[in-house]
Amino acid sequence: MDSIGVKIVVIGGGTGSFTLLSELKNYTHNLTALVNMVDDGGSTGVLRDELGVLPAGDVRQCLVALSTTPKVRDLFNYRFDDGGMKGHAFGNLFMAALEKMTGSFAEAVETASEVLSVKGRVEPITLDNTKLVVRLDDGTVVNGQHMVGSLKIPAGQRPWLDLEPEAHINPRARQAIIDADLVVIAPGLLYGSLAPALLVRGVTRALNESKAKKVYVCNLVTKPGQNDGYRVSDFAEEIERFSGTTLDYVLYNNHRPSDDLIERYAQDGEYLVEWDEAELERKHYRASGKRLIADRAWVNTNASSDPLAAQRSLIRHDADKVARELMRIYFS
Amino acid sequence: MDSIGVKIVVIGGGTGSFTLLSELKNYTHNLTALVNMVDDGGSTGVLRDELGVLPAGDVRQCLVALSTTPKVRDLFNYRFDDGGMKGHAFGNLFMAALEKMTGSFAEAVETASEVLSVKGRVEPITLDNTKLVVRLDDGTVVNGQHMVGSLKIPAGQRPWLDLEPEAHINPRARQAIIDADLVVIAPGLLYGSLAPALLVRGVTRALNESKAKKVYVCNLVTKPGQNDGYRVSDFAEEIERFSGTTLDYVLYNNHRPSDDLIERYAQDGEYLVEWDEAELERKHYRASGKRLIADRAWVNTNASSDPLAAQRSLIRHDADKVARELMRIYFS
Repeated sequence: MDSIGVKIVVIGGGTGSFTLLSELKNYTHNLTALVNMVDDGGSTGVLRDELGVLPAGDVRQCLVALSTTPKVRDLFNYRFDDGGMKGHAFGNLFMAALEKMTGSFAEAVETASEVLSVKGRVEPITLDNTKLVVRLDDGTVVNGQHMVGSLKIPAGQRPWLDLEPEAHINPRARQAIIDADLVVIAPGLLYGSLAPALLVRGVTRALNESKAKKVYVCNLVTKPGQNDGYRVSDFAEEIERFSGTTLDYVLYNNHRPSDDLIERYAQDGEYLVEWDEAELERKHYRASGKRLIADRAWVNTNASSDPLAAQRSLIRHDADKVARELMRIYFS
Repeated sequence: MDSIGVKIVVIGGGTGSFTLLSELKNYTHNLTALVNMVDDGGSTGVLRDELGVLPAGDVRQCLVALSTTPKVRDLFNYRFDDGGMKGHAFGNLFMAALEKMTGSFAEAVETASEVLSVKGRVEPITLDNTKLVVRLDDGTVVNGQHMVGSLKIPAGQRPWLDLEPEAHINPRARQAIIDADLVVIAPGLLYGSLAPALLVRGVTRALNESKAKKVYVCNLVTKPGQNDGYRVSDFAEEIERFSGTTLDYVLYNNHRPSDDLIERYAQDGEYLVEWDEAELERKHYRASGKRLIADRAWVNTNASSDPLAAQRSLIRHDADKVARELMRIYFS
């Protein structure tokens, strides 16, 4: 099979997905991004509340990542800073207008894809209007993705997650999974982004029906209060719990950045995800440790007024390296 | 010369221009719409005030008229009915976001043209931020296009119009006029739409430098309190006063619709523009009277909640007929 025809499905939503997609699109013309639909904060949350539309934020960013037209791409990420539209990303308004006009979020995604000259496809994992609910052992209930960000989970506990009301898989997302050669679960917030995609009813069945190799790309750092002390195998275990399927591969970083950088992250309570090699070797999946951290990474200065921010180094995936490792796994 | 290469420039803004453009685009691939830039009411006015952008409303509608992609066209005209964007046409937000992002209205028009797959070109007649000012003999001063709509001009008086601050012609609009084979001054509000386009500094000179045939397509009905009693020659005289050039042709309607319809218009103070043939024959321009009224016309039900409105007949130009007459004039 010609490598550019490899059918790759990326499941996620959030920055980890966006950067990975923007590189993976160079390796196949058959790329599908499946995006969680639980965003209810910021511009997206306001539009959900005011207009009753589905959450467009993560879909927009995946579309932008796959776009081949720089000007329209920048436009979709442009945020109004004044007036009644203040704080809204233009692309969110684009999607909202189309959904209101046509009554169909799927059609909105399709038109946005055309306008952005998207290479590949973006599919909402569900077209049902649903919210993320997290329950802890002590009876705490957290409603809405935007509330989950600040949730503290007691050490040693694993939270219970649900979508309410129950959400069913978008048939086109289902078909993409079934037809895929490679299904990638992208790095991203475990409880805020990945679980809400995997928990959609029908995803487990589609994953189990699919002949695709299933690969999880593990996060680089922990989220404070949510994944403290999680090692690579813990992340993978949670992914298997939510997806109801067994992973074939786990791809993780095994390069330690400078002490300086690690120290800076520690001040925010974020720690490098440790690779527990002995444990990983006993697993049913193949764990592949590589140097996946970008040598230098810059934050997006667009949203920042801090002139130093542009030069600050960060612990980020080298997305092209990850993409190439994924292709290697596919061909292995 | 191949007829589809005829270089046609249409000067105006407003419904008369939009409908004419949507038909003229079928007769040439070299069509340029030059649009007045004085709109300061409604969605456009709010965006001018809140974001400091140039008025996009009329430009948007010309772009839509020349668009070849129905879905994106509908999207550009979609108006939000809730939330912070309430009342805004999506296309206006599109133009505003692009202008804010790039700092250039011209670039916003260009990107919108691409997205809408526009056949032809739309050029703002000026890129200066200006407003329409109308002065009457009694000292009355009216500021802003949105205030001119309700202005009553005493019978027999001709108002003085200005743009403040002074606006200079967009160089690309200037070049389009100079290169044109045919310059059409579209039907539209004499004082609200046409004069503010013609009064832009540099338009007169460009018109006089151009070898194009200059044609004015006269309005069908008078605007109450502004053109009461104006006949075709009066409209043409005003166009020559504002443009500072001599017309080669005046195209006017000489078909009288049903008494019923005329009566209905009379109730709103609107009257069919009478064709004063004897007077017109003495003019330096060639006046051409034709049946230009559409047999049946429907109002756009989009903006109307009146179920009868959709079936109400109106006195409207048959835009395709007008387009064909313009081509005939070009070839005569």
